[in-house]
Amino acid sequence: MTSSAKSTADVAPVFADVEAAAARLAGHAVATPLLEWPVLNEKVGGRILVKAEVLQRTGSFKFRGAYNRISRIPERDRPAGVVAFSSGNHAQGVAAAAALLGVPATILMPRDAPAIKIENTRGYGATVIPYERAQDSREARAEAIARESGATIVRPYEDRNVIAGQGTCGLEIAHQAAAAGARLDALLVCCGGGGLTAGCALVMAELSPDTEVYAVEPEGFDDTGRSLAQGTRVTNAPGADSFCDALLAPTPGRLTFGVAVSDAAVGEAMAFAFRHLKIVVEPGGAVALAAVLSGRFDARGKTVALTVSGGNVDPETFIRAVA
Amino acid sequence: MTSSAKSTADVAPVFADVEAAAARLAGHAVATPLLEWPVLNEKVGGRILVKAEVLQRTGSFKFRGAYNRISRIPERDRPAGVVAFSSGNHAQGVAAAAALLGVPATILMPRDAPAIKIENTRGYGATVIPYERAQDSREARAEAIARESGATIVRPYEDRNVIAGQGTCGLEIAHQAAAAGARLDALLVCCGGGGLTAGCALVMAELSPDTEVYAVEPEGFDDTGRSLAQGTRVTNAPGADSFCDALLAPTPGRLTFGVAVSDAAVGEAMAFAFRHLKIVVEPGGAVALAAVLSGRFDARGKTVALTVSGGNVDPETFIRAVA
Repeated sequence: MTSSAKSTADVAPVFADVEAAAARLAGHAVATPLLEWPVLNEKVGGRILVKAEVLQRTGSFKFRGAYNRISRIPERDRPAGVVAFSSGNHAQGVAAAAALLGVPATILMPRDAPAIKIENTRGYGATVIPYERAQDSREARAEAIARESGATIVRPYEDRNVIAGQGTCGLEIAHQAAAAGARLDALLVCCGGGGLTAGCALVMAELSPDTEVYAVEPEGFDDTGRSLAQGTRVTNAPGADSFCDALLAPTPGRLTFGVAVSDAAVGEAMAFAFRHLKIVVEPGGAVALAAVLSGRFDARGKTVALTVSGGNVDPETFIRAVA
Repeated sequence: MTSSAKSTADVAPVFADVEAAAARLAGHAVATPLLEWPVLNEKVGGRILVKAEVLQRTGSFKFRGAYNRISRIPERDRPAGVVAFSSGNHAQGVAAAAALLGVPATILMPRDAPAIKIENTRGYGATVIPYERAQDSREARAEAIARESGATIVRPYEDRNVIAGQGTCGLEIAHQAAAAGARLDALLVCCGGGGLTAGCALVMAELSPDTEVYAVEPEGFDDTGRSLAQGTRVTNAPGADSFCDALLAPTPGRLTFGVAVSDAAVGEAMAFAFRHLKIVVEPGGAVALAAVLSGRFDARGKTVALTVSGGNVDPETFIRAVA
């Protein structure tokens, strides 16, 4: 049973996988808009195109990869369900995709995950099992559940079909930027495990090879950037904690790279989005916007696309940032 | 000088005025997306297309009418500036449009307007003059300023070019709905003075005559709906107060009609938009969404477009609604 759980995990995706994912997602995922605001362009001094992935089903890009992965599970394995571990956005993506495909879902979620994420995950019909972030190995527990029940593990990023699904976000960016007459100098991606970054990098290499792709991470969780700098995979310090709950991935995926932003810059970006862009962004979803607003990424005179995803933030956290 | 102030005020616009306004606004206003969320369709039991006008420059549709009106002021009258009275969204629209066109702006704003609206209006470079909502006649004061300074009054809705500008929102809805393969049974418009409703009704009559157009208002401020029912223009009770500060127009414009929603339904719509749609909506901008979510407008089995505009809400008001 673990063979089906891991069957799509170990091969790097290619561009055709993203195109196939886009065909599977058509009519199920939202083709989110690539938005442009004069107030943001003026503030930054460049042309900024925002992929508003907060408008995606479940409020983040994670639905894309989850739907693509689950739709690839053979019919005979579907009744045994899926199991996933996630601090929240992948949890919601898996829960919603599983519900649409008629597959039972069990999700391991840290006990301290934002209440809105736990509630929404249950709201999509999934069984949520809480765990202690500091103590439990969520991966080992998921594997044990998969062994016992025959369920398929839907990994948050190290999976060919998950990465290909997230890549559809990049595919839309490439087409929408071209339609807007924009030649992208850079694409800044919110990065946790790196599935979205990997999928977007793959698409840009194919369709827009001159566009530099950056993974943006919160300071202290910039494992992807440090891995790239050191030429080997590094992990975050044990016990490291961040505002960006969605990005607390213990190690980066295999296909990614970095810019790091401070929690203060992230809070300012959330407030800017509330005040001027009128979109709701959670801390982990605001890092790429924070990079251009804070000047950590110098976008002056450049044409830059960036992802804003997700938007699943508790009212209390949100108001602390915007007040 | 008052002749130029009123020169475009007294003639009802025609469809060609909206098309001309769209040409003038191209590249200046944002062509806001018409968005669709499975979670909203499922909740309502119909197909709901949301014109996310909160993503417009200045966070509301008011920029459209203001820009169209101000761009029609003859060159010789521009140095004398414009004057407007507004609780906030028209203020911001006029201030931003005037700044873009190099015209000085003076805006009369009620002292109790949301701080974010006053700050943003000043932020666009306008001179803000506070007034007491209950005591002062803002219109008389604006006319006095216009007489003394030669400034042109930019009225919030009773102006052919303002209505034509707001109508560009409806023009986009008609084209975007057609592109999405949607035949609209109804269009629900957030209604204050009625400029947006009038402009949208004009467009629908031309492009989609089977679409019923509804003005949605807060209860107690449903002067448009009551005027329609009584066949004559009525005003709201003196001292009537509403959550929907943007919709406190003393009498409706001449071209509009209604559904009324409660403040509780408006708060729930704002919370739904925060939790599920990830857009920031102010009370007055959430009334049409509230109408379908509350069932006050029965959208089951129908295809319905609605406007969500504006998004200029103080953090404290916002958090009261969403918490």
